[in-house]
Amino acid sequence: MIILDGKATSDKIKLEIAQTVKEIVEKGGKRPHLAAILVGNDGASQTYVGHKERACAQVGFKSTLLRFPQEITQQELLDRIKEINANDDIDGLIVQLPLPSHIDEDAVINAIDPKKDVDGFHPENVGRMMLGLPTFLPATPYGILRLLSEYGIQTKGKHCVIIGRSNIVGRPLANLLSLKDEPGDCTVTICHSRTKNIEYFTRQADIIIAALGSPSFLKGDMVREGAVIVDVGITRIPDETKKAGFRLAGDVDFETVAHKASYITPVPGGVGPMTIVSLMVNTLKAAEGK
Amino acid sequence: MIILDGKATSDKIKLEIAQTVKEIVEKGGKRPHLAAILVGNDGASQTYVGHKERACAQVGFKSTLLRFPQEITQQELLDRIKEINANDDIDGLIVQLPLPSHIDEDAVINAIDPKKDVDGFHPENVGRMMLGLPTFLPATPYGILRLLSEYGIQTKGKHCVIIGRSNIVGRPLANLLSLKDEPGDCTVTICHSRTKNIEYFTRQADIIIAALGSPSFLKGDMVREGAVIVDVGITRIPDETKKAGFRLAGDVDFETVAHKASYITPVPGGVGPMTIVSLMVNTLKAAEGK
Repeated sequence: MIILDGKATSDKIKLEIAQTVKEIVEKGGKRPHLAAILVGNDGASQTYVGHKERACAQVGFKSTLLRFPQEITQQELLDRIKEINANDDIDGLIVQLPLPSHIDEDAVINAIDPKKDVDGFHPENVGRMMLGLPTFLPATPYGILRLLSEYGIQTKGKHCVIIGRSNIVGRPLANLLSLKDEPGDCTVTICHSRTKNIEYFTRQADIIIAALGSPSFLKGDMVREGAVIVDVGITRIPDETKKAGFRLAGDVDFETVAHKASYITPVPGGVGPMTIVSLMVNTLKAAEGK
Repeated sequence: MIILDGKATSDKIKLEIAQTVKEIVEKGGKRPHLAAILVGNDGASQTYVGHKERACAQVGFKSTLLRFPQEITQQELLDRIKEINANDDIDGLIVQLPLPSHIDEDAVINAIDPKKDVDGFHPENVGRMMLGLPTFLPATPYGILRLLSEYGIQTKGKHCVIIGRSNIVGRPLANLLSLKDEPGDCTVTICHSRTKNIEYFTRQADIIIAALGSPSFLKGDMVREGAVIVDVGITRIPDETKKAGFRLAGDVDFETVAHKASYITPVPGGVGPMTIVSLMVNTLKAAEGK
């Protein structure tokens, strides 16, 4: 069993990006610039945005955090996005989700210029992804593909079972992995809350991607020998023994699954860091106008 | 075994549309108007466009066919699309594919105003479809969903195996049928040319959608008792005994599959007419500004 080390892989990619940024700046080019919008005081959201800002610093990007109170109106938010769209110094813009319930998330995402939408959430970019056209791929799926690729894991003709049909992980992955591409060319099954006998499907899988947000859902008896296991889950479990007051739990029961797997991602240190570095890759692309 | 009669179902829907158009016009409203662009002299393309024009006449739509020679430049075509986008009298615009090889199909589709893109091929509409947002659904998938729905076929929790990953049939259907919707909520497996042992997957399926374009590909021994079978194939097979010089062949070997199926679409008279009527539904929606 080999650990798919997202931490080490993302560190390597960060160094590559830092080198590219250094060269751009030395040639008199503009430093890539990521802007992030954060509304309200949700703890997890603040942590995620903090990780992204730190990654920007590590690779040499400029970053701007725009914080707004929970009570901001939708119109105010849309107006600020319009300003950022028009600001040539800003290459990429992300809006940390979830937004407060009085704000229509779709309207906010639709307002972002697709050329600055480095999260890949705008419908036009989602459509381009489904069609296999060049675009910003959403960070978590993109990070997973890169991790599989870095470890030379063959996907062509393999049966990949995805658990979870979210718009930002499960559904994009189902589309990307079924494309005639590398990684890709998988037979893909997408399972979700309405699937009867999920274990019936997971037991057939060469590759399992667990992205349902249910701690330790995938157990050893649901997995066949030699499967590749990707754990996208990242649930906070209250834990007094931890400084932060919680620990992170994946969707995979590592204890029972790991010894059957050929490759497996840990939590933390697997998909999480790959997600953040993929956002950096997208921001660099946006800056380079690709 | 029950035949999913696309001809009869589409006729019924056409009558409903015709009634709506009559009411719109009686109230002094504008008659819906579909424009179609046809480049060159491909026989099948001419036939398809002809079917669409006839359907427009049947439901009381105005239709305009814009024919261009094989040699038209991409820029000329883009200029004409721009004119149509700006023409308020035209509600829907379709470009019959394929286009000549010197024209970039993606560039042409991207040029269509998404609000007039009644084929649902523009990336923004494709993205909206994947995200489950209101949009124009591509006609063949939309027609299939409607047919399943008209016959009261339960899809929730069923395992649907789709053969074929095209951007206009297989991939949209995989997305739509996995959405939390009705029809929808299926566990979906998407198979294609790189899938090993397609029959291994089809034998597990509650619903099979064959959309690979390979005549009589799906045989009786690949199907389990009671499966619902949807045949999207429509290949022209030369046949001297037919007036047209060819017959249409589906992807399903009807002889061996039909007696095992609970429901099955014939070819012709199944998915084909549902596709055309779905284009009419989309055009009416476009005209109503929905």
